Amino acid sequence: MIKVDVNCDLGESFGPYVMGMDAKIMPYISSANIACGFHASDPMVMAETVKSAEQHGVALGAHPGLPDLIGFGRRDMVISPEEAKNDVKYQVGALAAFSKTGKLHHVKPHGALYNMAARDYHLALAICEAIKEVDPDLILYGLAGSELIRAARDINLPYAQEVFADRHYQDDGTLVPRSQPNALIEDEALAVERMVKLVEEGNIQTLSGKWIELQPDSICVHGDNPKAVQFTNRLYTTLNKRGITVSSAI
Amino acid sequence: MIKVDVNCDLGESFGPYVMGMDAKIMPYISSANIACGFHASDPMVMAETVKSAEQHGVALGAHPGLPDLIGFGRRDMVISPEEAKNDVKYQVGALAAFSKTGKLHHVKPHGALYNMAARDYHLALAICEAIKEVDPDLILYGLAGSELIRAARDINLPYAQEVFADRHYQDDGTLVPRSQPNALIEDEALAVERMVKLVEEGNIQTLSGKWIELQPDSICVHGDNPKAVQFTNRLYTTLNKRGITVSSAI
Amino acid sequence: MIKVDVNCDLGESFGPYVMGMDAKIMPYISSANIACGFHASDPMVMAETVKSAEQHGVALGAHPGLPDLIGFGRRDMVISPEEAKNDVKYQVGALAAFSKTGKLHHVKPHGALYNMAARDYHLALAICEAIKEVDPDLILYGLAGSELIRAARDINLPYAQEVFADRHYQDDGTLVPRSQPNALIEDEALAVERMVKLVEEGNIQTLSGKWIELQPDSICVHGDNPKAVQFTNRLYTTLNKRGITVSSAI
Amino acid sequence: MIKVDVNCDLGESFGPYVMGMDAKIMPYISSANIACGFHASDPMVMAETVKSAEQHGVALGAHPGLPDLIGFGRRDMVISPEEAKNDVKYQVGALAAFSKTGKLHHVKPHGALYNMAARDYHLALAICEAIKEVDPDLILYGLAGSELIRAARDINLPYAQEVFADRHYQDDGTLVPRSQPNALIEDEALAVERMVKLVEEGNIQTLSGKWIELQPDSICVHGDNPKAVQFTNRLYTTLNKRGITVSSAI
Repeated sequence: MIKVDVNCDLGESFGPYVMGMDAKIMPYISSANIACGFHASDPMVMAETVKSAEQHGVALGAHPGLPDLIGFGRRDMVISPEEAKNDVKYQVGALAAFSKTGKLHHVKPHGALYNMAARDYHLALAICEAIKEVDPDLILYGLAGSELIRAARDINLPYAQEVFADRHYQDDGTLVPRSQPNALIEDEALAVERMVKLVEEGNIQTLSGKWIELQPDSICVHGDNPKAVQFTNRLYTTLNKRGITVSSAI
Repeated sequence: MIKVDVNCDLGESFGPYVMGMDAKIMPYISSANIACGFHASDPMVMAETVKSAEQHGVALGAHPGLPDLIGFGRRDMVISPEEAKNDVKYQVGALAAFSKTGKLHHVKPHGALYNMAARDYHLALAICEAIKEVDPDLILYGLAGSELIRAARDINLPYAQEVFADRHYQDDGTLVPRSQPNALIEDEALAVERMVKLVEEGNIQTLSGKWIELQPDSICVHGDNPKAVQFTNRLYTTLNKRGITVSSAI
Repeated sequence: MIKVDVNCDLGESFGPYVMGMDAKIMPYISSANIACGFHASDPMVMAETVKSAEQHGVALGAHPGLPDLIGFGRRDMVISPEEAKNDVKYQVGALAAFSKTGKLHHVKPHGALYNMAARDYHLALAICEAIKEVDPDLILYGLAGSELIRAARDINLPYAQEVFADRHYQDDGTLVPRSQPNALIEDEALAVERMVKLVEEGNIQTLSGKWIELQPDSICVHGDNPKAVQFTNRLYTTLNKRGITVSSAI
Repeated sequence: MIKVDVNCDLGESFGPYVMGMDAKIMPYISSANIACGFHASDPMVMAETVKSAEQHGVALGAHPGLPDLIGFGRRDMVISPEEAKNDVKYQVGALAAFSKTGKLHHVKPHGALYNMAARDYHLALAICEAIKEVDPDLILYGLAGSELIRAARDINLPYAQEVFADRHYQDDGTLVPRSQPNALIEDEALAVERMVKLVEEGNIQTLSGKWIELQPDSICVHGDNPKAVQFTNRLYTTLNKRGITVSSAI
């Protein structure tokens, strides 16, 4: 049986503010990355999101971010590895408390923390150590081929290499930066087809036309607007039709 | 063997701000109530405090507070039981992530949350349910005879009735309010002697001169100034001399 | 010329979170109560909201709230008059910095702060003193007949008595509490007509059928949903048709 | 008459946390840089600090920082010029509200914001524009020779070039980085003498032995520990003895 995980950021509402279409996206994903109160969310939102994910059989993941609520954790911030380690522990523990079993399935750093750690091995290592110290069974979700994956591998932390359904890749396996005009794939059918191919054959065509290998343990989708939900529905349906099971069992 | 627990609020520093004499008080207590980031503390402080408590063999307790950093969690706030429940879960989970075993020993609500729940059964029940859902072995620390204790008993959550070494009691077993001139016991020797008697015989003399029964599972001390540290040292030494073991095994 | 002010809470977005239909409501109001970062908003949102209000010729008002972002400033909190005073000064000053002239037109406390001060003279007085010390020309907006109005009058702070277009009143001039089934007036035409009558004749019919006098310096409307915007449009149009000018000149 | 300003960061306490020896340092300085609630301080602390500075005849300055309370505004953060502009406006306005006159004397960015703007002209310009839009009479305090000074000059914002009493300089007029072993001048007498010379003659000896010119509009001192207070006392006394007036009139 071929299978792939589909993950989505969820639980990003805060106090009176609603963000995301969490209920709509749940049926089409297998893993949820749930915000933990630093860049978004609060204890009420976390309780509700965990409950909903549990009801849908969606695997629970912590989505720890930088302590920057105004900036939604998207502004790079110079934090020490020690600070990153403790910030991640704190958030992972906080979310785990809402789970029925007291356990989570995975941890995926958010926003600027994700991007900084993808480039910076020391930061990546601190984050992986934090995860392992909290629970060595937790799976790190990180950008395929990044320092996060390298750090996880180095300390024997389970990991999932993540690919992006709506993004173009460069020949070295990194994403085409969003600052470039053709970073995003607008054609839904093409984006879905690329993912199916990637799961089936383990390779993807870069922007230059070259085919490269990539390990797609998990496909990252979005759930913050109707178009994204529709796309995820289509991805899910197509994967199923092609005999690929959407499952968090990595 | 007669024994009693001695607990103290710790880990109340925040960012660049230092509060408390944590290292000095550790040798004389058996349980630490560690702030969790809502009314005080941050992930770095929590990591350091947990490590220090573990090194001293002091039992780890979460000290969840209201989301009021400026007011140090001391300002009453109208929160719903559901909000209290989730605020407590969040904080207990966050602290547990720093423990070597992933487990904590107890939970003691802080400040206004403690006082509001001591009076309000619905709030107390929500807090106790939060604790039980996170880990049914956790011990609730609450004011002896308060609604917190009643709620814990009602749902079979382990609890410790807490007494205050430096406070006078009223005939109904409640504390003489701090707003009254003789709320505090200034005489160190007297305060220590009262605690020894209470542990040995289970009763204490109220301000009116009457003797009442009280269950002293844990004695609350302070560690935020040199005098308090000295008092706790004296209490600890005297308890030991009188054959009473200071221990978190409740 | 008969005139009345129409005020609305605005600028309640925060970071990545959008709240309210500010651009849509601006044409139909004369005064904006702009959130100041404690219960909602942030410096970017404040800059944008002030700019938009200035472009629409809408008078700028500060809308200071309790320091409770998660609770949107709606949860009662026990703060001292001194704390309220300084919290209000801070927020009024912060907002004024975004105004072209460096001056604001009015101050209207938000949510729980508004309600607590409507009942508590000492809190009301502290808030009025804060406003006066920052700028004695500022107009306090408060619930008609409340302690806020009494305090403003006592220290000669300009004030505007505020009435609510969509709420029923009790015989004593206070609002029917939201907890009661008929607190709100659902019938748009009736709500508009009541306001016109109140402005023209200075009296309004209570829920019991009695007519009472009320001073309607300013009518409070909402702008957070399409129905509210439509209602305000209708109110504005009707007031104009009846020869009543909508103006912040109180 | 020769004169020089002596400035110090003050008002850095927060909620229950006390930082700095504000009362002790006040007699020896002419300008206070008062924290505004983003990296430190709160409305109560600001009210008290402004009052104390006014009583001592010390000029009031805003000390705006990054929105990073845990990191005390010392962690670099990638914020846009627009965000910096609005963050500064907000904080300057908030502090001004506590001043008796409603006016401040100067603005000195804090910590990471100060250092980032010293290097980054666009950020520096945004900060200077913010200050000018709030009040064109405000004086920017910035590192002598930095981008902050260049930006202020470019938009005709009054500025004061700041020198550090306890730091060594490099041949290009920049400070020896704190990461280097001899960044700080430990010898009190030497540090004072260097400042007197610099004020009298406009030049200072660098670490390499070379003499360079520097414009010392204001000398930055510290007030967070007894040694710093003693040093500032000595600096103040020596300046006076040598006929140099310590004054904020720049």
